Amino acid sequence: MKLSDIGEKRLIEIASSILEQDPDEILGLGVDDAAAKPIYDDLYAVMHTDVLVESTDKLPGQSYRDLAYKAVTANVSDIAAKGAKPYALLSAIGIPRVYDLDVFEELMLGLKDSSSSYGCYVVGGDLSSSRELFIAITILGLTYRDRIMGRRGAKPGDLVCVTGEIGYTSLAYKILFDGWRVDDDLRRTVLERIYRPRARLDEGLTLASTGVVSSCMDVSDGLAISLNTLAEVNGVSILIDRIPIPEGVSYVAERYGMDPIDIALYEGGEEYELLFTVKPSGLRIVEDALSKLGCRFSVIGYVAEGLGVYLSHGERVEARGWQHFVGWSSRSTS
Amino acid sequence: MKLSDIGEKRLIEIASSILEQDPDEILGLGVDDAAAKPIYDDLYAVMHTDVLVESTDKLPGQSYRDLAYKAVTANVSDIAAKGAKPYALLSAIGIPRVYDLDVFEELMLGLKDSSSSYGCYVVGGDLSSSRELFIAITILGLTYRDRIMGRRGAKPGDLVCVTGEIGYTSLAYKILFDGWRVDDDLRRTVLERIYRPRARLDEGLTLASTGVVSSCMDVSDGLAISLNTLAEVNGVSILIDRIPIPEGVSYVAERYGMDPIDIALYEGGEEYELLFTVKPSGLRIVEDALSKLGCRFSVIGYVAEGLGVYLSHGERVEARGWQHFVGWSSRSTS
Repeated sequence: MKLSDIGEKRLIEIASSILEQDPDEILGLGVDDAAAKPIYDDLYAVMHTDVLVESTDKLPGQSYRDLAYKAVTANVSDIAAKGAKPYALLSAIGIPRVYDLDVFEELMLGLKDSSSSYGCYVVGGDLSSSRELFIAITILGLTYRDRIMGRRGAKPGDLVCVTGEIGYTSLAYKILFDGWRVDDDLRRTVLERIYRPRARLDEGLTLASTGVVSSCMDVSDGLAISLNTLAEVNGVSILIDRIPIPEGVSYVAERYGMDPIDIALYEGGEEYELLFTVKPSGLRIVEDALSKLGCRFSVIGYVAEGLGVYLSHGERVEARGWQHFVGWSSRSTS
Repeated sequence: MKLSDIGEKRLIEIASSILEQDPDEILGLGVDDAAAKPIYDDLYAVMHTDVLVESTDKLPGQSYRDLAYKAVTANVSDIAAKGAKPYALLSAIGIPRVYDLDVFEELMLGLKDSSSSYGCYVVGGDLSSSRELFIAITILGLTYRDRIMGRRGAKPGDLVCVTGEIGYTSLAYKILFDGWRVDDDLRRTVLERIYRPRARLDEGLTLASTGVVSSCMDVSDGLAISLNTLAEVNGVSILIDRIPIPEGVSYVAERYGMDPIDIALYEGGEEYELLFTVKPSGLRIVEDALSKLGCRFSVIGYVAEGLGVYLSHGERVEARGWQHFVGWSSRSTS
């Protein structure tokens, strides 16, 4: 059977069934994108790796410098969602030997930019000639046991929240791949967000420090998939009341005859906002903490008994979006 | 300028000149393949990443299971050479979507084998579709400050030693790429060593525990390049008296009209033996320690003032062998 018939999600399940779970690791292989393991007393290493491949991940018009920056963002985002501070980065790069030195230098500059931006150095790397360019980043973060926010922990009654707004990258894909036209200002805003996204590092560390967040992950796989993952690993259902969609995105979506909610749920990804759950009694604490950073967030729904993710009018939110090996599942072709 | 005109060594220099050195990291970006950074008091994280790419690294006849095993060995070897114990592995894998599930399962089994073999779990990973298969492994190791063996530290008067024997992989390349014929037993031995090599983990930890090793690295880049690297980063010269070459390898090399010394120095690589220096007064301690593991090692020469690497009859050992992007430098084509 070909990998394209299987898809990333199932492959991760297969990998997790073959590999053995480290008994000291607390987030769960195949459950969480990151891993956390005690190093000394209650000091934990939080680790993650994420790879960007040119043919799959480099966007039209994106520079190699931005691509490298984004590779680091994807990693920082995942450990920020666990409440860990970046401690060291490593990069393994494959690059065709016919490429120009400029490309390599751009990648290094992107690593340097992101390293300054997140306050974490690249301490090592490997370099190989390959048939296509890829950049695999591994990040090591540190935090204390009681600061770690896992994917598991959400309980019925908890509020479901998300930082920032969702939908910019969905619109960016529509502009880049489906020829949607928007005014120059909006085009610049959405492309900047997808070319060189920033991870919510300070927000993740702050959320962890509140002690009231019951689960957390980023929405880099797309909102619909992320919500379904959160529901699934916690054995709960999630009911969504509202999604904070930027006005410009809603406006353009409607102009093209699409429901903004669908756009935000299914057509995006690579959006490095944090999705988290909190008990209602802790909401005020989260509000105070995030407002000090100037970070807006929204309560988008709540956790309930049951399984699956639903919109308030009862429609099911399916776990679809982009998936490696199979591509967009049931992507709208309008 | 194309990368193929530049070569891996110069690219690493360029990378090191663009990226900033982490002030807390003690091994040196671009100096050592591994990085070491304090985590808590004198407890250090030792980190390394190594990537294998199918078109460059997969040998004829090598299984995907062995390829994945070897990717882990390359990583374990580098942190063992620093005296650190493996603590966690992460894998970032790219694989074409037209590949069969069997290939993916083989890779996972190779990771599982190596994980058991080195007593270290795979705690996380990422998976992407890509135009060619690659497997980037990152390893995190732990050790204490006074146990770390860097590449820097060799002083004139120190003895230069190597574990095991050198030359099996050189012969393997000759068999696989130049059509050399050898008897079945020898063929099996050399191919096994290059298909599924083992890292000198216990030996590295033991050497570190002696406290008398002044510098250490593995010889995975080939003996000539490794010796030159060691001389260069220490600003010393190295004089080589003898190289422990397996009898079978010498015999076959001579039959093909080649000097066994040349074969061992320039035609190999991916040999995971440890190259280390020790003060003459510490030699006995190293002998006792390694003999308890049943590990043979040889004193192959000594460190002197000056620069460069030389054989005892005065011939210079050049820093040539396999280098990414440019391939074999001045490889014999006999």
